[in-house]
Amino acid sequence: MSKLYFRYGAMNCGKSTALLQTAYNYEQNNKTVILLKPKIDTKCKNHIESRLGINRKVDLLINQEDNILYMLNDLLKNNISCILVDESQFLLSSQIEDLWKITKLYNIPVICYGIKTNFKGELFEGSKRLLELADEFAELITICPCGKRAKFNARFVNGKFTTIGNDILIDGKSDEVRYVPMCGKCFLDQLNSNNNYITE
Amino acid sequence: MSKLYFRYGAMNCGKSTALLQTAYNYEQNNKTVILLKPKIDTKCKNHIESRLGINRKVDLLINQEDNILYMLNDLLKNNISCILVDESQFLLSSQIEDLWKITKLYNIPVICYGIKTNFKGELFEGSKRLLELADEFAELITICPCGKRAKFNARFVNGKFTTIGNDILIDGKSDEVRYVPMCGKCFLDQLNSNNNYITE
Amino acid sequence: MSKLYFRYGAMNCGKSTALLQTAYNYEQNNKTVILLKPKIDTKCKNHIESRLGINRKVDLLINQEDNILYMLNDLLKNNISCILVDESQFLLSSQIEDLWKITKLYNIPVICYGIKTNFKGELFEGSKRLLELADEFAELITICPCGKRAKFNARFVNGKFTTIGNDILIDGKSDEVRYVPMCGKCFLDQLNSNNNYITE
Amino acid sequence: MSKLYFRYGAMNCGKSTALLQTAYNYEQNNKTVILLKPKIDTKCKNHIESRLGINRKVDLLINQEDNILYMLNDLLKNNISCILVDESQFLLSSQIEDLWKITKLYNIPVICYGIKTNFKGELFEGSKRLLELADEFAELITICPCGKRAKFNARFVNGKFTTIGNDILIDGKSDEVRYVPMCGKCFLDQLNSNNNYITE
Repeated sequence: MSKLYFRYGAMNCGKSTALLQTAYNYEQNNKTVILLKPKIDTKCKNHIESRLGINRKVDLLINQEDNILYMLNDLLKNNISCILVDESQFLLSSQIEDLWKITKLYNIPVICYGIKTNFKGELFEGSKRLLELADEFAELITICPCGKRAKFNARFVNGKFTTIGNDILIDGKSDEVRYVPMCGKCFLDQLNSNNNYITE
Repeated sequence: MSKLYFRYGAMNCGKSTALLQTAYNYEQNNKTVILLKPKIDTKCKNHIESRLGINRKVDLLINQEDNILYMLNDLLKNNISCILVDESQFLLSSQIEDLWKITKLYNIPVICYGIKTNFKGELFEGSKRLLELADEFAELITICPCGKRAKFNARFVNGKFTTIGNDILIDGKSDEVRYVPMCGKCFLDQLNSNNNYITE
Repeated sequence: MSKLYFRYGAMNCGKSTALLQTAYNYEQNNKTVILLKPKIDTKCKNHIESRLGINRKVDLLINQEDNILYMLNDLLKNNISCILVDESQFLLSSQIEDLWKITKLYNIPVICYGIKTNFKGELFEGSKRLLELADEFAELITICPCGKRAKFNARFVNGKFTTIGNDILIDGKSDEVRYVPMCGKCFLDQLNSNNNYITE
Repeated sequence: MSKLYFRYGAMNCGKSTALLQTAYNYEQNNKTVILLKPKIDTKCKNHIESRLGINRKVDLLINQEDNILYMLNDLLKNNISCILVDESQFLLSSQIEDLWKITKLYNIPVICYGIKTNFKGELFEGSKRLLELADEFAELITICPCGKRAKFNARFVNGKFTTIGNDILIDGKSDEVRYVPMCGKCFLDQLNSNNNYITE
């Protein structure tokens, strides 16, 4: 029985590179893969782009109202070896369920890449459903400014750390929003020094 | 820097056995451990009991209103090598945060054992916060009646599969409630054959 | 396709407890398991014994000259759900290959528990073949006297650390041989303070 | 205390891509990394090259007679955040020990990327020492022609599967040598259909 995989990490951990490598590995074996991405991630439009300088067009953009099972209905009749999803944290719970059902009903592996937690240290909707349903997880590693393994995504607005604001705020769209991957200790230090308590 | 660990699994995966083994390993090295358990788990009262026939008294029972940082304040001044928590899925978000802070502020490792998802396939409050904050996860494995690795906890009431009812319903208290660890495929089959859709 | 698993750790990490828990989990589902152990491990004779106080008779003891495929030939015709092997580091390469073939040819999972490295920090014959062939590894954790995770097994003879002597020397048989699970740093400190260089 | 990591996989699993991504992640944080490679890997000379089309010059090539501790002596006095090693399976045991000592004595993490087993399904010298000494392993995944996860590297000479020949035989140098990553079942089928028994 095929599996639903979740490969997660903090921001800038190399998720897109890992996804593009996996697509390449399948295709070297003459296998067909499908690349999906939620439309809400407007950064690279209909491309998956790695910071290492490689990129590739996605096969389908997913809207909030899309039923993925329905959307892929025709494609699944072809000989698909794997479905790869970028920025899967932005998918709805029901869309992650669709992907899970594809693994069990069509016996096609689905590998979701995504960020685990938002700038408050809370699971995104898609990540939560993936941690509930996925058969296997793996963490992609990136580092904190202190050199340790980063687990959190600190949001800085105009250079100031904050845990207040919209859950989704794409960086790079305005100069003042920036994310820094951080280890637990550094993130807690920021919380304490800003009188930002996690539970309010 | 010490870590917060989450060792999770489906029901009956051997969490209590693993916890008691870890306590034993520390104590063989003349280290002091503290054993905690939420009071809501009424099955073994103030004991941690393994189905293999071993058991041990917990050091502190945690109530819903307890601030764990405050509660352990005096104990943390002693030379504690590890804190072990059973049934951690039943802790509140804020209590998991307390445990996380202990690892970073007191440099004491905390190992939480717990069930990941409830009978609907959704994260418990404590498990959700652990998946957000823990430095390391590991899955304890148990098996589905089909022989595959179990990920879900199916609830049967009077022999009938259901996804309706209270999130927490301790088995063994009344004869009619029973849980069966299940793999994804078997759980999905149950959902489909009962017209129980996950998202309603 | 069934998998060959290797669950390894330093000495006293709880391998036998984990094995007995797994056997229990299968049998709770009315599945049949087979328990194997190399005869060379003379400590508990034909039992698998956990330091937590539980024990159980093994189904078959394996001698150095045994062909496991041949030995299990009749048993494999029955409905076996899992084969569990204790002290698998002491098996020969060819015996590990037999277990690997059982997973692929008979579609029966085999879970081997064992110590990874000897007191010199080198793989045992069985562990080496398992790391070559196993489909999945997992480390069972125990701790160093310093409180960190132990990876090595330091041998002390009459209280003195040594890396000289027979590869296999069962502790407890004579008072003067004792093993201490150690982390990398403490093991390296011992090597350096004893002028015991790893590569000679 | 810093760790020695081993990220291994079958051929073409994306090791070089992963290494280059890790270097990038450190440098984005203004950290200095050192890239090493054994000279024996003559494919890309003094570059680390990913099949995705990215590449980078290594800082130091390692010869068989090199003592890495001695070689890096001056560099280690600088502020190095991480040492990254490609094709680490080709290093000698003693060279892996040098890298291990660097993690413990200089507190610098070392991440070794490499192939686990040769075309006979046996550990390379460097991989063996890494599996003995590394603090953490992770498998990089690639796929078998059958679509399953590949664990083995089958060698084909003039289109014929073989387990006979030199341990190290770089592909691409002559047209007739080719490697195919394979899952356990497919590799065993090849062994059986070629009357190539693993243990001879």
